[in-house]
Amino acid sequence: VNDELDNLKKLLARLPGLGEKSGARLAYHLWRAPGQYSEELARAILAVREKIGACPVCGNPTSEDKCVICKNPERDQKTIMVVESPQDLAAIESTRSYTGLYHVLHGTLSPLAGKGPGDINLESLARRAAGAAEVILATNPSAEGDATASYIEERLAAEAPDVKLSRLARGMTVGSEIKYLDPLSIQHALKGRQGK
Amino acid sequence: VNDELDNLKKLLARLPGLGEKSGARLAYHLWRAPGQYSEELARAILAVREKIGACPVCGNPTSEDKCVICKNPERDQKTIMVVESPQDLAAIESTRSYTGLYHVLHGTLSPLAGKGPGDINLESLARRAAGAAEVILATNPSAEGDATASYIEERLAAEAPDVKLSRLARGMTVGSEIKYLDPLSIQHALKGRQGK
Repeated sequence: VNDELDNLKKLLARLPGLGEKSGARLAYHLWRAPGQYSEELARAILAVREKIGACPVCGNPTSEDKCVICKNPERDQKTIMVVESPQDLAAIESTRSYTGLYHVLHGTLSPLAGKGPGDINLESLARRAAGAAEVILATNPSAEGDATASYIEERLAAEAPDVKLSRLARGMTVGSEIKYLDPLSIQHALKGRQGK
Repeated sequence: VNDELDNLKKLLARLPGLGEKSGARLAYHLWRAPGQYSEELARAILAVREKIGACPVCGNPTSEDKCVICKNPERDQKTIMVVESPQDLAAIESTRSYTGLYHVLHGTLSPLAGKGPGDINLESLARRAAGAAEVILATNPSAEGDATASYIEERLAAEAPDVKLSRLARGMTVGSEIKYLDPLSIQHALKGRQGK
């Protein structure tokens, strides 16, 4: 009977991490939200779709012809870090300890979900890698992230054989306690131990 | 640098139950979502704001002059159930065990959050109650819900003294285990025990 509200609930329920209950909760919230918040949100969604594209070089969001990182001549043009998402890129940038370029995959390979190499931003990586000195594979330490990194390693070994490949180190996160660490992380920490 | 994306992140982070991280996650999702999903969502938000109002009788959402429940002559016009939200109303309706009318408060009294009687849909309740046989207080079994029910009880005792007041029963939820039940619920179950 309230078609508009039902439609909004269903659309919100499809957002990642939400479901039927939280979709309904947000729909009622947006219906009742004071002031112009809901209208602003709707316009902000449309603006992002209209104004923001993917950087044709690295895939990072940008409203210009290239993203700020690719545009910055002071960044190390010979190093490319492959990340899964713009959020990962932002997390790395926030450390201020990396000065190279990026390549944003927008996902991982996921055979179970039917996502193959053509479904992520891989097309241009081999060509970019051929002109680089190092490609750092910074996919997440998950099954999909690892599988994606391995696939990229194989492809680059064939298509850009001169580039140095590396992966982010695994081990103990700062502040973690060994007694609570999962066995795999302990194995990684041991295998990757550093001499003094 | 990506003003539109940052703006969308911030707006999404203000939704109830979300925060900075989930706001960013949803913003990137909406930016990249395939097809017309994001545009549909934006339009659905605007449509809800334009087309759906609060029923002037009970506060339930409606796109017409009265909500479907208030419009239905077959519902028991002498019983009013006071609920906090349209979601609570929907949960009660889904049981098909209540045939009366509703009064949707759209919130609770919350002195700490600065929400007083003027901030929820209470204005018309006393007048409606004066014409009813029973008012069922179905606020949530929380501190705010209880305080709101108590406040309404006091007001109706003064402004609609002839109406019968009741509250939903408390006790054990179906499928719960006594050994895991909180002490207050056990107290309620004991106090409200029913003779055979």
